[in-house]
Amino acid sequence: MASSQFHCLQSVRVSSPSRLSISTSFYHGRVNFKRKSNCLVYASTNNFNRDLHLQSKVKTVLDSVKWDDKGLAVAIAQNVDTGAILMQGFANREAVATTISSRKATFYSRSRSALWTKGETSNNFINVHDIFLDCDRDSIIYLGKPDGPTCHTGAETCYYTSVIDLLEDQQSRGDKFPLTTLNSLESTIAKRKGELEVPQSGKPSWTRRLLLDEKLLCSKIREEADELCRTLEENEDKSRTASEMGDVLYHSMVLLALKDGKMEDVLEILRRRFSQSGIEEKRSRKTQG
Amino acid sequence: MASSQFHCLQSVRVSSPSRLSISTSFYHGRVNFKRKSNCLVYASTNNFNRDLHLQSKVKTVLDSVKWDDKGLAVAIAQNVDTGAILMQGFANREAVATTISSRKATFYSRSRSALWTKGETSNNFINVHDIFLDCDRDSIIYLGKPDGPTCHTGAETCYYTSVIDLLEDQQSRGDKFPLTTLNSLESTIAKRKGELEVPQSGKPSWTRRLLLDEKLLCSKIREEADELCRTLEENEDKSRTASEMGDVLYHSMVLLALKDGKMEDVLEILRRRFSQSGIEEKRSRKTQG
Repeated sequence: MASSQFHCLQSVRVSSPSRLSISTSFYHGRVNFKRKSNCLVYASTNNFNRDLHLQSKVKTVLDSVKWDDKGLAVAIAQNVDTGAILMQGFANREAVATTISSRKATFYSRSRSALWTKGETSNNFINVHDIFLDCDRDSIIYLGKPDGPTCHTGAETCYYTSVIDLLEDQQSRGDKFPLTTLNSLESTIAKRKGELEVPQSGKPSWTRRLLLDEKLLCSKIREEADELCRTLEENEDKSRTASEMGDVLYHSMVLLALKDGKMEDVLEILRRRFSQSGIEEKRSRKTQG
Repeated sequence: MASSQFHCLQSVRVSSPSRLSISTSFYHGRVNFKRKSNCLVYASTNNFNRDLHLQSKVKTVLDSVKWDDKGLAVAIAQNVDTGAILMQGFANREAVATTISSRKATFYSRSRSALWTKGETSNNFINVHDIFLDCDRDSIIYLGKPDGPTCHTGAETCYYTSVIDLLEDQQSRGDKFPLTTLNSLESTIAKRKGELEVPQSGKPSWTRRLLLDEKLLCSKIREEADELCRTLEENEDKSRTASEMGDVLYHSMVLLALKDGKMEDVLEILRRRFSQSGIEEKRSRKTQG
């Protein structure tokens, strides 16, 4: 069962503690109001009522999950910017309640029979933006942003062993991740860039040519942007737009690689500018009044 | 236990059946050479030896998985282009062996005590490009491309219930997916576009202005592409490059939305052009000889 620290009330703290504080505890399905001295609870009558209301809602959500015969459900942590699946563990009621309140991905360790928050030892927390349940309500996604590598080996994700690699007789080198298309393209460009530093290495390729000729690269980016616009201006087919957009994206990514930039940074910038989901959006609404 | 169809030899077929055929069967950890009349096996002496070699390798990989006390491991299906987690099930040895050989995501149904290939009823198969194991070897990712919606409800993924939405007192409408940043931005732009069709709806926003003014949009795309290039030409800081790249990407996505295009299509085009991973890469190498 969970360690005693999770018996206490846990606080959701927003930017200003005086604005909103929520304490939740859902030990074994019961709302538990025991207060321990090491727990920070900012109390006021209004906040207390609000907390009670939220606790009731969290309990309803937790009641709706189909926990297995050990009280667990599968919990998958995913990087909101790259889409990388970081790790998979199991969660019980307390783990999900703790994740809701702390916004740090928290699991239940079956081997240690205890809750554990990813990052409590390494400081590489996974900051959860939202939590999703599947149609059967027995599987959970923690969608968030990791502070650093998730795997205890230091790898970005725990999934670094490709079965196809293994079948190809290669020793798993721990460097083949389940990359989605955008990340895979970035990885290919980075590889071509790396080859430039080793004389006589690398095959001729368009990416290599672009990396070696900044003038050509910039001319291509401007040209492809122009061609993308012309698919709208000249009312071309949408498949042409998708193709030109692919060109814009690819050539821009080569420039980004030349500048040692990362797509994850670009996506984080876009997220901060445009998307505020889940708790962040809620906070923003509260802040904006 | 698995249904009888999986006792038979299963074929990995490449573009030309005569080039390579691999039959695998790993029923309960034993290599099984029983041949059923309803199984296609293209046999030749060379291919037979190659098959035996591959079967031995698959057996080694399957032996390395830490199956739980029921012989299962968690199996997560992910869309290679969008990064969306499509569904999560469980797999036993046969399910993984079948996925390797058929390249269709296959699971073990705990309720029906049988193998099932996602899509066998709906035809919405998940075409697996590679399979990944985590550091503990007890969790599996099937990375691939779905033929259509994965969820039995018709939703793109099985994860459509946001806990934050539930806590906000909203009924889950089945339309909030765990969107990664790129998909989330696309969804926001699509929402703004949808608002244009309803008079007096939607708030003023930059996206709305761009959607209503094609000239402004195209001028911004060309301008942002130029600014991105100038971060290289004028040796600006890489954070400036990331920011300008974000602008290029966002404005291009608004144009794509205007043309009813989808980022998934753009990414699929890029994948087909640039990335060949796992089985595809292997096939290509064999084809290129």
